[in-house]
Amino acid sequence: MRDVAIIGTSQTKFGELWDSSFRQLISEAGLGAMEDANLSGSDLEAMFVGNMSAGLFVGQEHIAALISDSMGMNPIPCTRVEAACASGGLALRQGIMAVASGYHDVVVSAGVEKMTDVVDATPAIATASDQEWEAQQGATFPSLYAMIAKRHMYEYGTTREQLAMMSVINHKNAANNPNAQFPFEISVDKLLASSSVADPLTLLDCSPVSDGASAIVICAAERAKEFTDTPIYVKASAQSSGTIALHSRKDITTLDATVAASRKAYDMAGLTVKDIDATEVHDCFSINGLLAIEDLGFAPKGEGGKVLEEGQTNIDGDCPINPSGGLKARGHPLGATGIAQAAEIVWQLRGEAGKRQVDGAEIGMTHNIGGTGGTCAVHIFGRDLN
Amino acid sequence: MRDVAIIGTSQTKFGELWDSSFRQLISEAGLGAMEDANLSGSDLEAMFVGNMSAGLFVGQEHIAALISDSMGMNPIPCTRVEAACASGGLALRQGIMAVASGYHDVVVSAGVEKMTDVVDATPAIATASDQEWEAQQGATFPSLYAMIAKRHMYEYGTTREQLAMMSVINHKNAANNPNAQFPFEISVDKLLASSSVADPLTLLDCSPVSDGASAIVICAAERAKEFTDTPIYVKASAQSSGTIALHSRKDITTLDATVAASRKAYDMAGLTVKDIDATEVHDCFSINGLLAIEDLGFAPKGEGGKVLEEGQTNIDGDCPINPSGGLKARGHPLGATGIAQAAEIVWQLRGEAGKRQVDGAEIGMTHNIGGTGGTCAVHIFGRDLN
Repeated sequence: MRDVAIIGTSQTKFGELWDSSFRQLISEAGLGAMEDANLSGSDLEAMFVGNMSAGLFVGQEHIAALISDSMGMNPIPCTRVEAACASGGLALRQGIMAVASGYHDVVVSAGVEKMTDVVDATPAIATASDQEWEAQQGATFPSLYAMIAKRHMYEYGTTREQLAMMSVINHKNAANNPNAQFPFEISVDKLLASSSVADPLTLLDCSPVSDGASAIVICAAERAKEFTDTPIYVKASAQSSGTIALHSRKDITTLDATVAASRKAYDMAGLTVKDIDATEVHDCFSINGLLAIEDLGFAPKGEGGKVLEEGQTNIDGDCPINPSGGLKARGHPLGATGIAQAAEIVWQLRGEAGKRQVDGAEIGMTHNIGGTGGTCAVHIFGRDLN
Repeated sequence: MRDVAIIGTSQTKFGELWDSSFRQLISEAGLGAMEDANLSGSDLEAMFVGNMSAGLFVGQEHIAALISDSMGMNPIPCTRVEAACASGGLALRQGIMAVASGYHDVVVSAGVEKMTDVVDATPAIATASDQEWEAQQGATFPSLYAMIAKRHMYEYGTTREQLAMMSVINHKNAANNPNAQFPFEISVDKLLASSSVADPLTLLDCSPVSDGASAIVICAAERAKEFTDTPIYVKASAQSSGTIALHSRKDITTLDATVAASRKAYDMAGLTVKDIDATEVHDCFSINGLLAIEDLGFAPKGEGGKVLEEGQTNIDGDCPINPSGGLKARGHPLGATGIAQAAEIVWQLRGEAGKRQVDGAEIGMTHNIGGTGGTCAVHIFGRDLN
């Protein structure tokens, strides 16, 4: 297996982007990452694109062909990967495998979602749950995660204020991210006073409906210095599946897929959770950010709320989480999220994250979830190869 | 790059399968391939599934998690790949790269589509074309391929009867395929007298709307003999992109993506078209089978019709095409097709194809198209590694 590096990154602004079409967003991100990597078109050998549901959001499948065409990249292979909100993380993994295998030397892994062209995004998002056993019975994602939150509060005494801290910290970081959808701070009081969505979750516990795209350039490590002085290396790429439906789980307060993928990633990298300097976790709802803190190993089970409350996950804390602002405040264009997380970690490890920089970050991790944990991708990156 | 072998295959019956759900079909095929490879569940390390549009056909995205769950395979990674009707071919390619890279030793690549749960499949299928510039203007796939057929007839004098021969030969082969949707013969006269769909194409020029699934097991070549005495080796895996819209092409009678992918595949395998003993081509419409014969190099441009008429593509001809019955007569559950093609070639190379066996087949090829040629995957398989 060949070593693999990241040599370029790009992200569009995330938000309600009425003036940008699906193909414009992905072209801006894809070509932006190539420019960041000092690539010419003829250097690029393949593309992998994460997207959850262009079919339901913009009436377009076969988006890989559309993207290759729109970016002027024909005839190189372009492949769409889908795993609900983990689509980006899996596109990243496919790009890594394509380079590790020797099939390709230089590829783009990208993600895109254009969600605001439909009147109501919720039914499309609900297709990430078990359609027959969850969605058709009326369950939506806020309601599924609300059940997890209720159970976590019941089992472990997690407080409403602790949950709120996940969003508050995200917003604080996003205030320093020019690409964020909501670049401003919020308070616990403001969150608790916002409209109820699915009790106990309020509006400000929930990530938004977003348009946006992100892309990175992946390269064989042995060739990375041809393109950049600051390659970032892939130390682990791991993926796991969990049950798609909540009712099939022994314990709904643990995402087994996160536990399995992260343990595999630590093994691959030869690292432990204590070695990680900055992490982007999948906080589609505040409770999911809290679960990630526990399931990745930053806190014992049941103590995620305490870790948040104590400030350990702040940019200057012991285990900085979501310096980008996370899904809550950077925005969550579903298929783009896994790639945007990787782009943020690359910026952190290059020392290019400006006012949201984690000082001296050398090892970073991304955690990307599909559905309520049916899919999980965990990646670990480092400034050095070994 | 490690060498890769196919050690197991399976295909459900293709057809209007009212009694089988999406998850039943893929589980039957996936577990069937594992049984064929003498695998236990703990041997399997990952799955890749091709599917065009479960979102539009059955209201379910995130199908990889659903499939891993339904097959009892959690927590192994399961990844969905989409490229319209080439989804299966790309899932095959992702599985090959996953094993070639060393990330995994034993994986399943599968494909599935459940198309008969919607009243009209045509609008969903149309999302494989350029939604903004083709589908929204009223173009459907039969009309796009009808334009290609008209132009081919005008440019090269191809006759209506020559086109019909593609379907006639497919049906003759399907009569010996117990998994085929239409296992019976038709005549040129019957085809010409069938209802017009989009002039010059009639009903019997068009592949059907189908339910079905297929799966194969891919293994590191060095471990293949642990599981089977008759491994079939992957000699080439190539993929190319063409323009998604017809109007962007210099010449609509050539699919550039087929030409590019097949030339790359021949190079990888160190073979020429003359070395291929049996081929499965993507005949979603009769004209597309004819184009494939030309673009893959079995006939000079413009002479595909002549080659069909002369019987060269019959099972006992110089270049046997679609011994399975092809998309037209075996059936075309979109995401399953690319895998079903590979399964057929594996059966042919193992000498297990019964009355549709191509005598002494040692090298086989599959050709899988998305849309009108926006994506093409070409794979070459052999009984021997070198």
